[in-house]
Amino acid sequence: MKPILALNAFDMNDVDVLGGALERQLRRRAKLFGAASVLFYDRPLEIVRGEGCWLYDADGAAYLDAYNNVPSVGHAHPHVVEAAARQLSQLNVHNRYLHHGILDYAERLLGTLPASLSNISFTCTGSESNDLALRLASSFTGGEGVIVTEAAYHGNTALVTETSPTSFKKGGPPPRVRVIPAPDSYRVSPELLSETFAGNVAAAIADLSNSGIRFSALLIDSIFSSDGIFADPPGFLRAAADVVRSAQGLVIADEVQPGFGRTGASLWGFQRHGVTPDIVTMGKPMGNGYPIGAVATRPEILDAFCARYGYFNTYAGSPVAAAVGQAVLDVIEREQLMDNAERVGAYLKQRLSDLSVRHRHIADVRGAGFYIGVELVDPLDGLPAPDLAATIINQLRHRRVLIGAAGRSGSVLKIRPPLCFSTVNADQLVAALDEALAAAC
Amino acid sequence: MKPILALNAFDMNDVDVLGGALERQLRRRAKLFGAASVLFYDRPLEIVRGEGCWLYDADGAAYLDAYNNVPSVGHAHPHVVEAAARQLSQLNVHNRYLHHGILDYAERLLGTLPASLSNISFTCTGSESNDLALRLASSFTGGEGVIVTEAAYHGNTALVTETSPTSFKKGGPPPRVRVIPAPDSYRVSPELLSETFAGNVAAAIADLSNSGIRFSALLIDSIFSSDGIFADPPGFLRAAADVVRSAQGLVIADEVQPGFGRTGASLWGFQRHGVTPDIVTMGKPMGNGYPIGAVATRPEILDAFCARYGYFNTYAGSPVAAAVGQAVLDVIEREQLMDNAERVGAYLKQRLSDLSVRHRHIADVRGAGFYIGVELVDPLDGLPAPDLAATIINQLRHRRVLIGAAGRSGSVLKIRPPLCFSTVNADQLVAALDEALAAAC
Repeated sequence: MKPILALNAFDMNDVDVLGGALERQLRRRAKLFGAASVLFYDRPLEIVRGEGCWLYDADGAAYLDAYNNVPSVGHAHPHVVEAAARQLSQLNVHNRYLHHGILDYAERLLGTLPASLSNISFTCTGSESNDLALRLASSFTGGEGVIVTEAAYHGNTALVTETSPTSFKKGGPPPRVRVIPAPDSYRVSPELLSETFAGNVAAAIADLSNSGIRFSALLIDSIFSSDGIFADPPGFLRAAADVVRSAQGLVIADEVQPGFGRTGASLWGFQRHGVTPDIVTMGKPMGNGYPIGAVATRPEILDAFCARYGYFNTYAGSPVAAAVGQAVLDVIEREQLMDNAERVGAYLKQRLSDLSVRHRHIADVRGAGFYIGVELVDPLDGLPAPDLAATIINQLRHRRVLIGAAGRSGSVLKIRPPLCFSTVNADQLVAALDEALAAAC
Repeated sequence: MKPILALNAFDMNDVDVLGGALERQLRRRAKLFGAASVLFYDRPLEIVRGEGCWLYDADGAAYLDAYNNVPSVGHAHPHVVEAAARQLSQLNVHNRYLHHGILDYAERLLGTLPASLSNISFTCTGSESNDLALRLASSFTGGEGVIVTEAAYHGNTALVTETSPTSFKKGGPPPRVRVIPAPDSYRVSPELLSETFAGNVAAAIADLSNSGIRFSALLIDSIFSSDGIFADPPGFLRAAADVVRSAQGLVIADEVQPGFGRTGASLWGFQRHGVTPDIVTMGKPMGNGYPIGAVATRPEILDAFCARYGYFNTYAGSPVAAAVGQAVLDVIEREQLMDNAERVGAYLKQRLSDLSVRHRHIADVRGAGFYIGVELVDPLDGLPAPDLAATIINQLRHRRVLIGAAGRSGSVLKIRPPLCFSTVNADQLVAALDEALAAAC
C-alpha cells in the first residue's frame, strides 16, 4: 500500500524545475529536516497569515482553506488568541498545583460526554491521547489485541504507529494488531454495512483468540477519515460495539478527527452512531492549534492503569491549555458552528453531488457536516483513481483552493474546512472543482 | 522502589483535615481527574499568577520558585508572551506548508549543536522526543536493547515509560531495557566514577548480548536529575560513550532536564562531558511552557527510520512553536541567563555547602549551574533520609519557598529554579532551608 500522504507530497526530485527563491527555500528545508520533511503540493505553498477560512501566501494571494481542521474555529480567531495571550501573561505551569481553570474546563468537557466517562486526563497531542488510551485498555482488560481499520491513522508514538497501517512504508502492524476493512459505504450496501463491519470485528476477535492473543480494544475513528470518510448510515457502528462488549473488550473512540462539532449534528462523532465508548480520545481541533489533547474514561479503567503506572504530562492541563480549550468551546457555541457545519456541510455535499451528474469520475459524495469525501474512479472500469485525485488537488491549489486526499488508495478528495466555512465559500470550492475536473478529465 | 513523586504528593486520605474551600476544591479535582491526580505538598497550593521567579497564590501570597525548570526564563516572561501572542494572531498551522520561522529556528538550534547533528524533527513534548529517538536508534542499529539508569525518568509514552524505572509502581522495565546504577558521585570516589559507570554500561551490553538482545542505545540525562543529580567530575561520561560506540550502539542525550543553559557553562548538558551524542532530545524549557520538543540527529539515522515509517506531528514545528522557541533563546542570550546560572548557581551551591557545617543531615551538595542536589542522610548511620527530605520540602512550602525531591529513595532535595534566580533569591532560599532544618532535626 502506497502511503496516502505521498500522493499529495512534493517530490524533492522536482526541485530544479521550480528555481529561484522557492527552490532555495526548499533546499534549505530539506537540509534541516532531512528525510522526514514532507510538503504538500507539486508547488509547495509558503503561507504567512491566516484569518477565518483564508490563508495568505508570501505574495499576499488568498487561498480558500477547505483542508485544515486543526484551526477549527477559524485561523487566528481573536477570542482564542486573546484567551491564550491573557493566560500566558499570567501563569503557564504544570498541574501539580491547584488551578480553577483546568477544573472548570474538565467539568465543561466531561459535561458533553456520556455520564459514565467521568474521569479525564489531559495530554498535549492526539498521539499522546491514543497512546495512553491503548495502555488504559490493556491494563483494564489484560489483553494486547487491538483492532483497527485498514487505512487508519491514529498518531505517531511507537505504540500508536503500530495501530496506524498508513504509517508503514514497509511491512505493517504486528500480529497483535488486526487490520479489518473499513465500512466502505460506497462498495457495501447500506442494509449490509453494519452487519458486515460487525462481522469483520467478530472475525478479528476470533482470529486473535486463535493466535493466543487476548483482545483488548477496537480503536476507531467514527468518521473513518483516512480510510476514505464513511459516515452513513448513522448507527452502523452499534453492532460492532456490541460485538466488542460481548468479547469483554473496550471501544476506544478516537475523536481527534470527528470531535468538537465537525460532523455537525453532534459534538462527538460516536454520538451519531448511538454508541457509548469506554474511552474517548481528543486532540487536533481542541486548542485551535495550541497543543492540547485529552483522554476521558470510566474511573475503574483509569484505576487499573494507575495501580501499575504513574502518569504525568508536564505541559498538559496547564492554565493556558484550559483557557484556550474554553475559548474554542465558547466560539463553537457563540458562533453556532455545529449548526453551521451541519447546514453548510449539507449544502456543500448537495452541490458536490450535483457535480457528479456532469463529471462521471465522481463516483460518490459522502460524509457528515464538514467532513466530506468525494470518491474519484475511472468511469470505464470503476476502479479508484488516485492519480486523478492528486491532479485535482494540485489543480485546486493552483486555483487557490486547498483540499487533501484520503482513502486506502488515495482516491478520495478530503474536504474538511474550518467550521466557519460559509455557503459562499462552498460555492467557491465547487466552482473551482468543476473547473479542475473539466481541465483534468 | 517507592515512586519518587509519591514522597512529595498530597495524600487524599488527609483531605478531611484541610476543610473549607481547599477541601472542596481537592474533592472536585479528585472526582474529575481520578486516580491520575497528583498534587504537590501536604497542603496543596493554588497558584494563580507567576512573574520571574515568583509564584502567587489565590490570597496574593508570594512563593519563591526554586523548583520549576519549564518556565525556564521566568514565569510569564513578556518577550515570550509577546512573541506567542503576535504569532498566534497571524498564523498557527502545521508544517506541510513552507514557513521561514521554523527554518530560522531550526538553523539557530542546530547551530548550537555538534555539526554532525544536522537534521532536526520537531515534536510537542520531551516524551514524544524520546519516543522518536528510541525508534531512530532502533531503526539504525537493528537493536532493541536500551540502557538507562535506575531512577531515570524519560517521559510518559508506552515506549518511553519502559525506559523510565521511576514510572513503575509495580514491576519494572522489560528485559530489553537494562537498568544500571547512576554515577553516584557521593558514594563513588571521583577517580573511579567514570570507570565504574563505563563498566556498568559494558556489563549491561554484555548482559543484553548474552540474552540474545541486540544493543541499540544508552539513553541518558547527563545531569541525572531524577537519579539524584550527579554532575561531577565533568567528562565522566566520555568513557561510557566510548563503550557504547565500540559496541555499535548510539548515545541518546536526553536534554529535557539539563538543556537550554540550565547547567550554566554550556547550553547543553552533554557538552560538560565532552561527549558528542548520536541523538539529542529536547523538551521542557524549550518553549517556557508552550509545548515544544525536538530531536536532532545525523541524517543517516533519520534516513534509516524514514525508510520504514512516515513521521508527522500536527502541532509541531508550527509558526507559533518557532516564534516562542526563538523568544526563549533571545532571552537566554540577552539576559545572559547561562552566565547567571553558572554564577548564582555556584554561589548557591557554596552557601548550601556552608549550611552542612551546622546541619549534619546534609551529606552532600552537588550539581551544575541551576541544577543542585542536597543529599540528606541520617547522621547516625549515613543512610538516606527520604522522610526528612519530604518534611523539609513541606516546611519550605510553608515558608513560601518551593523545591522538590529526587534520588532513588527521594532523599535528595532538588533545587532547580528559573534561570533568572538572583543571589538575593539564593539567600532567601538558604535562610528558609536553614530554619526548616533547625525545626525538623
